[in-house]
Amino acid sequence: MFTLAELAERVGGTVEGDGTVAIRGLAGLTEAGPGDITFLANPKYAAAAAGTRASAVIVGQDWKGTCPCAQVRVKNPDAAFSVVASLLGPRPVEPAPGVHPTAILHPTVTLGVNVRIGPYCVIEEGVVLGARTSLFAGCYVGSFTEVGEDCRFYPHVSVRERTQIGHRVIVHNGAVIGSDGFGYVREASGWVKIPQIGVVVIGNDVEIGANVTIDRARFGRTVIGNGVKIDNLVQIAHNVQIGDHTAMASQVGISGSSRVGRNVMLGGQAGLAGHISIGDGAIVGAQSGVTKDVEPGSFVSGYPAMPLPELKERVQAMEKRLSRLEEPGAARTGESAS
Amino acid sequence: MFTLAELAERVGGTVEGDGTVAIRGLAGLTEAGPGDITFLANPKYAAAAAGTRASAVIVGQDWKGTCPCAQVRVKNPDAAFSVVASLLGPRPVEPAPGVHPTAILHPTVTLGVNVRIGPYCVIEEGVVLGARTSLFAGCYVGSFTEVGEDCRFYPHVSVRERTQIGHRVIVHNGAVIGSDGFGYVREASGWVKIPQIGVVVIGNDVEIGANVTIDRARFGRTVIGNGVKIDNLVQIAHNVQIGDHTAMASQVGISGSSRVGRNVMLGGQAGLAGHISIGDGAIVGAQSGVTKDVEPGSFVSGYPAMPLPELKERVQAMEKRLSRLEEPGAARTGESAS
Amino acid sequence: MFTLAELAERVGGTVEGDGTVAIRGLAGLTEAGPGDITFLANPKYAAAAAGTRASAVIVGQDWKGTCPCAQVRVKNPDAAFSVVASLLGPRPVEPAPGVHPTAILHPTVTLGVNVRIGPYCVIEEGVVLGARTSLFAGCYVGSFTEVGEDCRFYPHVSVRERTQIGHRVIVHNGAVIGSDGFGYVREASGWVKIPQIGVVVIGNDVEIGANVTIDRARFGRTVIGNGVKIDNLVQIAHNVQIGDHTAMASQVGISGSSRVGRNVMLGGQAGLAGHISIGDGAIVGAQSGVTKDVEPGSFVSGYPAMPLPELKERVQAMEKRLSRLEEPGAARTGESAS
Repeated sequence: MFTLAELAERVGGTVEGDGTVAIRGLAGLTEAGPGDITFLANPKYAAAAAGTRASAVIVGQDWKGTCPCAQVRVKNPDAAFSVVASLLGPRPVEPAPGVHPTAILHPTVTLGVNVRIGPYCVIEEGVVLGARTSLFAGCYVGSFTEVGEDCRFYPHVSVRERTQIGHRVIVHNGAVIGSDGFGYVREASGWVKIPQIGVVVIGNDVEIGANVTIDRARFGRTVIGNGVKIDNLVQIAHNVQIGDHTAMASQVGISGSSRVGRNVMLGGQAGLAGHISIGDGAIVGAQSGVTKDVEPGSFVSGYPAMPLPELKERVQAMEKRLSRLEEPGAARTGESAS
Repeated sequence: MFTLAELAERVGGTVEGDGTVAIRGLAGLTEAGPGDITFLANPKYAAAAAGTRASAVIVGQDWKGTCPCAQVRVKNPDAAFSVVASLLGPRPVEPAPGVHPTAILHPTVTLGVNVRIGPYCVIEEGVVLGARTSLFAGCYVGSFTEVGEDCRFYPHVSVRERTQIGHRVIVHNGAVIGSDGFGYVREASGWVKIPQIGVVVIGNDVEIGANVTIDRARFGRTVIGNGVKIDNLVQIAHNVQIGDHTAMASQVGISGSSRVGRNVMLGGQAGLAGHISIGDGAIVGAQSGVTKDVEPGSFVSGYPAMPLPELKERVQAMEKRLSRLEEPGAARTGESAS
Repeated sequence: MFTLAELAERVGGTVEGDGTVAIRGLAGLTEAGPGDITFLANPKYAAAAAGTRASAVIVGQDWKGTCPCAQVRVKNPDAAFSVVASLLGPRPVEPAPGVHPTAILHPTVTLGVNVRIGPYCVIEEGVVLGARTSLFAGCYVGSFTEVGEDCRFYPHVSVRERTQIGHRVIVHNGAVIGSDGFGYVREASGWVKIPQIGVVVIGNDVEIGANVTIDRARFGRTVIGNGVKIDNLVQIAHNVQIGDHTAMASQVGISGSSRVGRNVMLGGQAGLAGHISIGDGAIVGAQSGVTKDVEPGSFVSGYPAMPLPELKERVQAMEKRLSRLEEPGAARTGESAS
C-alpha cells in the first residue's frame, strides 16, 4: 500500500487532487475501482478516463481532459505505469532456486552463481549458463551453447547446439532457436539438403516471443542485435542479420540472408524476401510484402510493397485526363490542334 | 458393426436402398470400400459420390444426384457424420487414469475427481484442475492457474501463471497461453519492457489449436469468450477480447487491445490492427488486413481492407465514362454544350 | 585438413591457382580468413568475392569475375558446398546411443536396431520406430504411430496417434503432427466439434520445419508426399494432400482438403483456400492468396491471386483508349462515324 503522493514521487510526477488517498492495486480504466490507480496513454480512451471508478489516473503532462478522481501528471504515462506495476503488481514468478533434481545436466556444463533450472530441463555437453540465468520447466539447451547472465527461458524453450546468447535475454514458451535453415539443391532425384552448419548469435537485452523460430546459418551466423524485440510466431531464416533495437510484431517472416538495420520497426505479418536490405530506422507496415531494398528512414507498406500505390497514381492521372476530355469544348481543342 | 438401418436411426435419417447392409467402418468418398459408410456434404464432390465403392452414403435431404449404393438422407450430413464417427471411429485416446508418477505437482495443487495427468507434466503452486480434466505428457501449468472440468490438454501445452480456463476447453499440442504481451517504452537507451501483469481468461467450450499463442494482458485481462474456436498458429495479443462463439482460421493475428464481437468469423492469415473493434457477426476474409472498426454483420476483405475494392469502383466508373466518350457523336454532345 | 586439390577432387571441380594450399575450415565470403574455403553461388555477392580473405572460393563454371585467391570451378557451387561442409564442418549432433533411462516407452513399443531416444521422451502404446531413427529430448509419439528408418526428431516434437511416417524424415523442434483438424457444425447452441478421426501419412525424405502444424484428416488421410520440404511455422489443414517434391517456404497456410501437386513451390506466407487444386510444377508467389484452382506449370501471385493483375490490364487498356481519344482528330473520327 502506498499513498498517491508516495507513488507520484516514485514516478517523478505531480499530484493533482488528494495525495493522501491510499492506493492498493492497479487496473485498466474501465476495470479499476476504489483503491486502484490506472493510467491513460492512448487519447482514444479519454472517455473511459472520464468515467473511471479508480482512485487516481496517471496522465500525460499535456492532457487536457478531466476525470472524477486524483491525477498524477508525468512525462510518459507508459513508463510511469511500469514503475507502478513493479510496486503494486504481482511478484514475478521464478523457478525455485538451484537445479531441480530431475534436470539432466551433462557433467561438462558450467553454471554461474544463482542459476535456476526447473524440472525436466535437458542441458547438453559443454553448455555455459551465466549467473542468475533462470530456465523454467522442460527447456532444452543444445551442446556448446553459451547463455549470458540474467537470462530467463520460459517453459519448453528449445535452443540447438552452438548458439550464443547474450545477457538479460528473455525467451518465451516454445520458441526455437538454431533450427536448420531451409536450404536444398535441386537434383534429378529431388531436393538434396544443404548442411546448415552455422550458428545463431543473439545480443544483449533481446526478447523473443512464444513459438518464434530462428534458424541457424547455413554457415557463418544468423545475428540478432542488442535490444531487439521479437513478438510471437515470428520466423527468422538462416543468415539473417537484425540490427540493434529493431522491433518486429507478431507473425513477421524474414527470408534468408536479408539484413534489417538498426531501429527498424516491422509491422505484424510483414514478409521480407531474401537477400534484401532494410535501412536503419525504416518502418515496414503490417502485412507488407517487401521484395526490394528499403532506404534508411523510409516507410513502406502494401503488397508488393510498391505496385498498388503506383496503380493508384495511374488511375488518378487517367481520371484527370478523362475529366479534361469530358469538359465542354474538349473535342474542339482537339480539332484546332489538327 | 451396425446395419445401415440402425445407423440411420441414430442420425435421424431415412434409408433409401437396402437397410440390412452391414456397416463396419467409415471413410471418404474415394477411399471407402464395401462395408464402409461415407458422406457427401460439399456438392463439389458429387462426381466422387457417383463413383464410390462404399456400401452407403449419407446425403442431404435435397440432394438430387445418384450413387451406386444405399443412401441415408439427413438434414445435416456434417452433423450425421459426427454421430457415425463416434459409433464407428477409433476410440479417442486418453492419458492413463490418475497422476503419472513422473508428473511433478506442487503440494498445494487441487485436483478434481478423475483428473488424468500424463508423464513429465509440471503443475506449479496453487493450481486447480477441475474434475475429469486430462493433461497429456509434458504439459506445464503455471502457478495459481485454474482449469475447469472436462478439459483436455494435448502434449507440450504451456500455460503461464494466474490463467483462468473454463470447462470443456481443448488445447492442442504446443499452444502457449499467458505469455507476456509485446509492450515497450522507447527510451534513449532502447526499448524498455513494460511489465505484463495481467492475465488470460478463457470461457467454456473453447478450442485452441496447435502452437497458438495467447498473450496475457498488460494489466487486466485478455478474454476469450465461450464457445470460441481458434485454429493453429493464431496469435492473440495482450488485452484482446474475443466474443462468444467467434471462430478464427489458422495464422490469424490480432493486435493488442482489439475487440472482436460475438459470432465473428476471421479467415485464415487475416490480421487485425490494434485498438479496433469488429462488430458482432462480422466476417473478415482470408488474408485481410483490417485497420479500422468493422460494423456488425458486415463482410470485409482485402488489404488494406478497403482500398482495393475502391480502386476497382474507380476503374469501373472510368470505363463507363470512356465508353461514353468513344460513342459516335460523343464529341458533338460536348460541342453543343459549349 | 585437406589440400585444395583434394577438396576439388571430392567435389568434382577444377582448381585455378595453388592446389597445395591447406584448407581447414569453411565460412562466408566476408567472414572467411586464411585457411578457409568459401563459395559464390549468388552473383549478387560477386563484390564480396573480389574482397574475400579466404584461401579459396568455389565458383560456377561460367563465372567471369576475379577473386584474390585460388578458385575451384564446379557445375553447382551449392552442391559442392554441401560436400565440403560434410568434410570440414562440425560433426552433426546425435542423441546418445540407446534409450535414455528417463524415456518412457509403453511395453508394446517396437524399436529397430540402433534407435536412439533422448531423455524425457514419451512413446505410447503400439508405436514402431524404424532402425537408426533418433529422437532428441522431450519428444512425444502417440499410440500406434509408425516411424520409418533413419528419421530424426529434434527436441519437443509432438506426433499424435496413428500417424504414419516414412524413412529419412527430419522433424524440427516443436513441430506438431496429427493435431485435430478445424471442423465444426453450427448449431443453435454454437459450434459443435466434428470428430477428427483420420490420420496423417508422411512419405520418405520429408523435412518438416520448427513449430509447423499438420492436422490429421477428418477421416481418411492428410498426405505429405515423398521428398516434400516444409519450412518453419507452416500450417497444413485436415485432408490436404501434398504431391512429391513440393517445397513450401515459412508461414504458408493450406486450408482443408486442398490438393497441391508434385514439384510445386509455395512462397513464404502464401495462403491457399480450401478445396482447391494446385497443378504439378506450379509456382505460387510469396504472400499470395490463392482462391481458385491453379493450372499445372503456371505462376500465380498477388492477393487475391488474380484480381490485381486483371485490374492492371484494365488500367492499361483504358490508358490506350484515352490516348487515342486525346490524339488530334480523335473527335473528328467520332463525328464522321455518326
